[in-house]
Amino acid sequence: MENWDGKEGTSAFHVPEWMQIQFADQKQEFNKRPTKIGRRSLSRSISQSSTDSYSSAASYTDSSDDETSPRDKQQKNSKGSSDFCVKNIKQAEFGRREIEIAEQEMPALMALRKRAQGEKPLAGAKIVGCTHITAQTAVLMETLGALGAQCRWAACNIYSTLNEVAAALAESGFPVFAWKGESEDDFWWCIDRCVNVEGWQPNMILDDGGDLTHWIYKKYPNMFKKIKGIVEESVTGVHRLYQLSKAGKLCVPAMNVNDSVTKQKFDNLYCCRESILDGLKRTTDMMFGGKQVVVCGYGEVGKGCCAALKAMGSIVYVTEIDPICALQACMDGFRLVKLNEVIRQVDIVITCTGNKNVVTREHLDRMKNSCIVCNMGHSNTEIDVASLRTPELTWERVRSQVDHVIWPDGKRIVLLAEGRLLNLSCSTVPTFVLSITATTQALALIELYNAPEGRYKQDVYLLPKKMDEYVASLHLPTFDAHLTELTDEQAKYLGLNKNGPFKPNYYRY
Amino acid sequence: MENWDGKEGTSAFHVPEWMQIQFADQKQEFNKRPTKIGRRSLSRSISQSSTDSYSSAASYTDSSDDETSPRDKQQKNSKGSSDFCVKNIKQAEFGRREIEIAEQEMPALMALRKRAQGEKPLAGAKIVGCTHITAQTAVLMETLGALGAQCRWAACNIYSTLNEVAAALAESGFPVFAWKGESEDDFWWCIDRCVNVEGWQPNMILDDGGDLTHWIYKKYPNMFKKIKGIVEESVTGVHRLYQLSKAGKLCVPAMNVNDSVTKQKFDNLYCCRESILDGLKRTTDMMFGGKQVVVCGYGEVGKGCCAALKAMGSIVYVTEIDPICALQACMDGFRLVKLNEVIRQVDIVITCTGNKNVVTREHLDRMKNSCIVCNMGHSNTEIDVASLRTPELTWERVRSQVDHVIWPDGKRIVLLAEGRLLNLSCSTVPTFVLSITATTQALALIELYNAPEGRYKQDVYLLPKKMDEYVASLHLPTFDAHLTELTDEQAKYLGLNKNGPFKPNYYRY
Amino acid sequence: MENWDGKEGTSAFHVPEWMQIQFADQKQEFNKRPTKIGRRSLSRSISQSSTDSYSSAASYTDSSDDETSPRDKQQKNSKGSSDFCVKNIKQAEFGRREIEIAEQEMPALMALRKRAQGEKPLAGAKIVGCTHITAQTAVLMETLGALGAQCRWAACNIYSTLNEVAAALAESGFPVFAWKGESEDDFWWCIDRCVNVEGWQPNMILDDGGDLTHWIYKKYPNMFKKIKGIVEESVTGVHRLYQLSKAGKLCVPAMNVNDSVTKQKFDNLYCCRESILDGLKRTTDMMFGGKQVVVCGYGEVGKGCCAALKAMGSIVYVTEIDPICALQACMDGFRLVKLNEVIRQVDIVITCTGNKNVVTREHLDRMKNSCIVCNMGHSNTEIDVASLRTPELTWERVRSQVDHVIWPDGKRIVLLAEGRLLNLSCSTVPTFVLSITATTQALALIELYNAPEGRYKQDVYLLPKKMDEYVASLHLPTFDAHLTELTDEQAKYLGLNKNGPFKPNYYRY
Amino acid sequence: MENWDGKEGTSAFHVPEWMQIQFADQKQEFNKRPTKIGRRSLSRSISQSSTDSYSSAASYTDSSDDETSPRDKQQKNSKGSSDFCVKNIKQAEFGRREIEIAEQEMPALMALRKRAQGEKPLAGAKIVGCTHITAQTAVLMETLGALGAQCRWAACNIYSTLNEVAAALAESGFPVFAWKGESEDDFWWCIDRCVNVEGWQPNMILDDGGDLTHWIYKKYPNMFKKIKGIVEESVTGVHRLYQLSKAGKLCVPAMNVNDSVTKQKFDNLYCCRESILDGLKRTTDMMFGGKQVVVCGYGEVGKGCCAALKAMGSIVYVTEIDPICALQACMDGFRLVKLNEVIRQVDIVITCTGNKNVVTREHLDRMKNSCIVCNMGHSNTEIDVASLRTPELTWERVRSQVDHVIWPDGKRIVLLAEGRLLNLSCSTVPTFVLSITATTQALALIELYNAPEGRYKQDVYLLPKKMDEYVASLHLPTFDAHLTELTDEQAKYLGLNKNGPFKPNYYRY
Repeated sequence: MENWDGKEGTSAFHVPEWMQIQFADQKQEFNKRPTKIGRRSLSRSISQSSTDSYSSAASYTDSSDDETSPRDKQQKNSKGSSDFCVKNIKQAEFGRREIEIAEQEMPALMALRKRAQGEKPLAGAKIVGCTHITAQTAVLMETLGALGAQCRWAACNIYSTLNEVAAALAESGFPVFAWKGESEDDFWWCIDRCVNVEGWQPNMILDDGGDLTHWIYKKYPNMFKKIKGIVEESVTGVHRLYQLSKAGKLCVPAMNVNDSVTKQKFDNLYCCRESILDGLKRTTDMMFGGKQVVVCGYGEVGKGCCAALKAMGSIVYVTEIDPICALQACMDGFRLVKLNEVIRQVDIVITCTGNKNVVTREHLDRMKNSCIVCNMGHSNTEIDVASLRTPELTWERVRSQVDHVIWPDGKRIVLLAEGRLLNLSCSTVPTFVLSITATTQALALIELYNAPEGRYKQDVYLLPKKMDEYVASLHLPTFDAHLTELTDEQAKYLGLNKNGPFKPNYYRY
Repeated sequence: MENWDGKEGTSAFHVPEWMQIQFADQKQEFNKRPTKIGRRSLSRSISQSSTDSYSSAASYTDSSDDETSPRDKQQKNSKGSSDFCVKNIKQAEFGRREIEIAEQEMPALMALRKRAQGEKPLAGAKIVGCTHITAQTAVLMETLGALGAQCRWAACNIYSTLNEVAAALAESGFPVFAWKGESEDDFWWCIDRCVNVEGWQPNMILDDGGDLTHWIYKKYPNMFKKIKGIVEESVTGVHRLYQLSKAGKLCVPAMNVNDSVTKQKFDNLYCCRESILDGLKRTTDMMFGGKQVVVCGYGEVGKGCCAALKAMGSIVYVTEIDPICALQACMDGFRLVKLNEVIRQVDIVITCTGNKNVVTREHLDRMKNSCIVCNMGHSNTEIDVASLRTPELTWERVRSQVDHVIWPDGKRIVLLAEGRLLNLSCSTVPTFVLSITATTQALALIELYNAPEGRYKQDVYLLPKKMDEYVASLHLPTFDAHLTELTDEQAKYLGLNKNGPFKPNYYRY
Repeated sequence: MENWDGKEGTSAFHVPEWMQIQFADQKQEFNKRPTKIGRRSLSRSISQSSTDSYSSAASYTDSSDDETSPRDKQQKNSKGSSDFCVKNIKQAEFGRREIEIAEQEMPALMALRKRAQGEKPLAGAKIVGCTHITAQTAVLMETLGALGAQCRWAACNIYSTLNEVAAALAESGFPVFAWKGESEDDFWWCIDRCVNVEGWQPNMILDDGGDLTHWIYKKYPNMFKKIKGIVEESVTGVHRLYQLSKAGKLCVPAMNVNDSVTKQKFDNLYCCRESILDGLKRTTDMMFGGKQVVVCGYGEVGKGCCAALKAMGSIVYVTEIDPICALQACMDGFRLVKLNEVIRQVDIVITCTGNKNVVTREHLDRMKNSCIVCNMGHSNTEIDVASLRTPELTWERVRSQVDHVIWPDGKRIVLLAEGRLLNLSCSTVPTFVLSITATTQALALIELYNAPEGRYKQDVYLLPKKMDEYVASLHLPTFDAHLTELTDEQAKYLGLNKNGPFKPNYYRY
Repeated sequence: MENWDGKEGTSAFHVPEWMQIQFADQKQEFNKRPTKIGRRSLSRSISQSSTDSYSSAASYTDSSDDETSPRDKQQKNSKGSSDFCVKNIKQAEFGRREIEIAEQEMPALMALRKRAQGEKPLAGAKIVGCTHITAQTAVLMETLGALGAQCRWAACNIYSTLNEVAAALAESGFPVFAWKGESEDDFWWCIDRCVNVEGWQPNMILDDGGDLTHWIYKKYPNMFKKIKGIVEESVTGVHRLYQLSKAGKLCVPAMNVNDSVTKQKFDNLYCCRESILDGLKRTTDMMFGGKQVVVCGYGEVGKGCCAALKAMGSIVYVTEIDPICALQACMDGFRLVKLNEVIRQVDIVITCTGNKNVVTREHLDRMKNSCIVCNMGHSNTEIDVASLRTPELTWERVRSQVDHVIWPDGKRIVLLAEGRLLNLSCSTVPTFVLSITATTQALALIELYNAPEGRYKQDVYLLPKKMDEYVASLHLPTFDAHLTELTDEQAKYLGLNKNGPFKPNYYRY
């Protein structure tokens, strides 16, 4: 982690007219609307495995009786193009409707389209993308198009593509290569079809998980000569980039959008505050009031989980390794304990550490009957689930994502999502959070594409604070929130530009 | 409402040994466990219509290919009895497992079995029951059996029976007449089979909705000569009893268990605090943070909804007609408004008034795009849904229990559960709440059955406070909660019996 | 307590025009304003001892060099009257200013004056009063005057009179007999001067503590023939009235305003939620975050204390004797323990039980060094302070109301207010709470005075719910709160009068 | 602000044995105890003006009749030394008792003494200090002495010295030059007496406000040749250091302890969460429930104020200039407004921006009657108090720190502390917060003194994260908090040292 110094992009870059934060009362024309679309939304940070399963990614029109591989089909869109590969181009209309609904829920991208499309800041950009293909992604892609970019797109996960949305994108002329249920071979074939094109060479990469970047490094290293930059979304992909950078092998600038303030706070604190309750309810229908809970880890995710459960009347204990976070837990009203101290008495164990084997077989052995165990942290390593695969224990699948593990004496523990991420497996990511991420990605692409020679070197950068602030400002109208503008006198007094950035780099929010 | 004087049962009744509140540390052997069972749980207070639909009452083993009416089948349990009518006696084993899991989640009833079965306080009782038939009900019935009672049972709703559970009860000898998907004729036939038995006449009634009581009044009025009392669970049924009483037609004592303190607080305040979040999430996947919400009504339900949403970062407005509740809303930090003042700006409208037409077409016309409208109150009258059934509006079912109603200009409102109760339609009732209700019912039966001549007249009574306290005490071990016992000196100082009741009748909790 | 049945006054009484709840937007002309006046405010429920000391009742103009007893002075007001006895009539102007400020903070009484002064519902009333004499009381008295009553007034506590206010009242013609620092003989002399008047006989009593009522019973029992009723404010006084009633000696109707909903909720839940923090801060300057606290008793006061401390980041444990309140504590997220279980580890012990010897010497012996012990409950009996008056313990007064009690081994506990009420001794009662009480008193006087023959018998009554609601409605404008009015159709549906009362008597709020 | 890059001290420094974080259960022997001492505690960050007044800094033994200047007195301590100048050496015993009480409240410094005194990491250090002289400072000084340092000390504020504590320090041999009520000439004379000593030259500086540093720069610049570093506590002093650094004039390393994580979180978020309530209560006795409040600024201080007031039932609005903080306010449930939108309706206005003229005369003109205005931000510039000094407005001092400003039409606003910091003027800083600061200062001195050549250059550094974590760990026993230790396997997995630091530099907590 020592090389994660997170250089922040210089804030000296040119702020175009359309990127001014608007202080006047902005009336929102389109409101966010939570609809069924949200249900199918997928987080972008899970491409650590492009084969993770997603319980909620059901496709509405999946008749499932069409077993022909899309690669074997001959399909054309209504304009006669066949530069795409999707499950069924005829589902386009249904997909379009999904996209239209998503547009209403992503006011920031729509505002960006409107504000920047005169200037077309991505004119000439040739973006190759590899992300989950959902209605929200479609709104992003069409925004990039509206700002002047050409795009080619593949899926970053073999299960997560919404076929109707892919069809709608193909229909409106986007070369999309993705369907739900790709084989691994399909997966790489799709990526290859995006980059290996006669007469078209990408100059920007938008990646989620690093597989696309990896493929180009491996197969077409020369392409990097024309590539202006990489925008990477996921923890895994960012980690790979830092390793490349450390090894001196990163040959273009890369933007780490995973660690932007807004993304961190929304994906972690605010989103988990809600999804811990949602995930537990949908799987177990339990009552929170009066329950004793131990939350392992008091980072942003842990803070969100603790706050929510405390508010619902649970009694919450916290474990921590970091004394500063530990002191925060104390001041926020949680008893700081070692897991062993409370393991016999708690009703729920939640891990949010990013660490491994936080809950061991020994802990599991000591839990009381009916204890619920789940993971809200980074990967599936926090609970030592492997240790439960022993002959004396019986596993009983009682519901989707819910297993009872039964000890010889009859004691059961309730294991959720087999120790994988509860919020991804058993609840949904609100469109509002996806909107923040997609807007951040769009701005990162714009910044890297337009940055003057020399602003960015062959290194990994955080989004300039100015842009982080801009993303936030684009989402304020959703809440009918009215920002105050500094007077000239005040700006001078504070030594700030009236349009920001408003905080020093080390500010903690 | 003026006749709802809620006479409280006398607290002078004999407190048997097993009904002492235990102050010693009680180690809980069985823990509540939220499992899939909860999913299928049904509230008891909805029998206003015995034909309400229940989205979540899926049966696990329903092959659905068996179209023969149970009334036409010849079935016997393993002991050779055919005094029952269920869908399929062969599902008994699966149902038994469900009951066993529920037993673990209902420690109070299990404790009651253990404590009272020596004394058999229901020896000689012949109870006819009409309730939802779920695993939780089965635990109640088998508890009544263990305490000495004979039981015959029908379903109070034509959709809510869990066939496996009914089978398991039939297999172990309970005359059960119920299946999922009864016709109305079946419904009354089943009830009749419970009461119209050669050589057996009920002396106690346990009703949920009043249909059983109604049937006996209508068909077998003479039966009341032997009946010692009625225990009624639902708002509707209780209302009918008060009407009977007012009209001088109530010919046996009746116990209103709907208005007991524990039931009210758990069904309303604590349960709604959780289910409002759950119901909204499951239907819309919305994010609560920053949302503007108006809650109509600040009774127990409204208080629960407001507290939960405030805790999740929503901005909550309240409407009220009662100045005292209004002042409470103010002191709790909610702006008290008229609905008109905020209707244009809110993201969510929630009704909890028990009143009718609280949300009118005029309000609906003025809501902003994507506004969510739902009902947590008493019946389906709070939102004037009928007013939305007009030609210029388009209804679009976007998900189970979720409709978009679309105005000619494209504005959509998101209507949940067609204005019926959100918590019943779109979330689940935790087993813990059902446990409180079932325990209360059991104690009410015991009290009425054992009450000496003259303690209860032909009137409607609230559960004696002592018993309400006893129900609460039976549930404390679930939370590893340790009650303090008064010393003799303190009891004398306060003028209280050490075993309660601890509060005057008018105490508000 | 069994005789505290709390008959609620009939709600069938005539509701005059001015007493309609106003639903139209009421613009507040006078705002509540927290000023120094609040500082000197005194609770009304402490007259259990008319010699309790009040730390905060400092008089602003007390030169203290005038040692002459007021009884020996010859004073006249500017109109030439000498029918009063106060410290110094010349302080009237300063007192008038205090009253004017208080008027701004008591909008409900001012509204009552305005609405009812045409009708003069107290015309002919001759009220003798015995309460704390503060600016707030002055606003009440002048309101009674404006509504047509004649008043004579004495103090219910020998220390609590604000001399300037008494002077201002005397100057404007009220026969007031009170000063700060009366002897006990003075105390009864003042009361006697109020009732023993040539040519004037009271027909209404407003009492706080029961001393005035007691005096009339003892000295002038015949006066009761003309007295229409007693309004009593304090727990102690109400208790005395119930005893009289039980003994068959109550010879006029009495109104218990202590147990009205608004008073209970404001004096207990809402007021204590704030004053526990205030009292602890002013005495100890402690930080709440991370502190472990045990709160004994989870009634309204305990609920308020627990909620406040939890919100400030304390870890709160609760003890209870009542299983229902205990279950509420669990659902609200507090561990329910016996005091012994946590006594060694907690930083603060707070009693709110109304019981005696809740904290014993044994508990005190086991507390850790620096543990803070205080009482928010009913009287000074909850902590066994007497047990600390033993030779081996050293008492050290470290600040006003703060004692260190030091064990031989050096351990100190921090005892606040010597176990008396923390909120009265170490913080202040907000004017808003006093306003609610004073308005309730005024309405109770109006109701008793105007009640038709036979409505009230020689018994103790609670304020009719309708009036409780009316008091609440008068305070809503302070919060710019807008009440919703039932439509005719809704009122009919609910079976309610549009002006209330809105709830059945047993409603718990 | 651009030069505030806040270089973090290298974390590669040697971690001595005594500085290991202890993971074993540490039993606390001395508990923090909030006592009257806290009352007199003063923040360290106010030396922007060494002449600020402090309402709460009352001295207990101040007879005030001794008018002789300490500079004119001949005093010796019991060992015969006269190398000090205090008000009255005879008050030493009283001061010693205060110090002993403070020791119990500062367990971290006491632990540091115990752990490090064998190693004496400050042996040879000659520290000159200039801070508030309070019991807490005395504990710090005596800790520095126990670790091997020689100290000479002056006051950083002419009013804040506690004479008894200064006497106690002088008595036990510390050359202290300070008394309450110094003239400006005295102030500099005292500082000079600390540094201008025959045969003694400081090699470390501990400053609070920068006056001492300034004096040495001005008078004895050559001294810097021997000085190993400066530890600066205050915002003002740190600002001066960054300016020196920017100008290339900083000639020794300096440690900015103002921006350490623990100090920031405790001084701002956690401390303000409590002191906003305390400050408002002590000055106005207002009730928080139902009040409408606008908080200007949603940084750490604003977050603390908002959370506290929301928890007490206030309705809180927020203004912000920074879109990221604005979005946080939304997600936390506060309406984001411009001040103008709500200024007419709010009951309280609180500034926490660090900006100037946030509340202008125009705003003040529009506030409603009785509106309370106060400042929790950085300096006294946030409210344009000067604009209220006009002839048509009347000022009325109604209580210490409370002014009514009265408009010609009678409207009053309630201005607290004349717009200076509410928490410093009207409440107190808990000893626990002072303990964190003092411990941080001690560690910063140790680090700078022992750092090998070259680790620190002539620049301003933040405390190494490792030390910030160590300070936090020393305070955990106060809360009986038990830290979890990484296993070797886990540390390897995370790439962390088991003793920390545990987070990357940019981590936001």
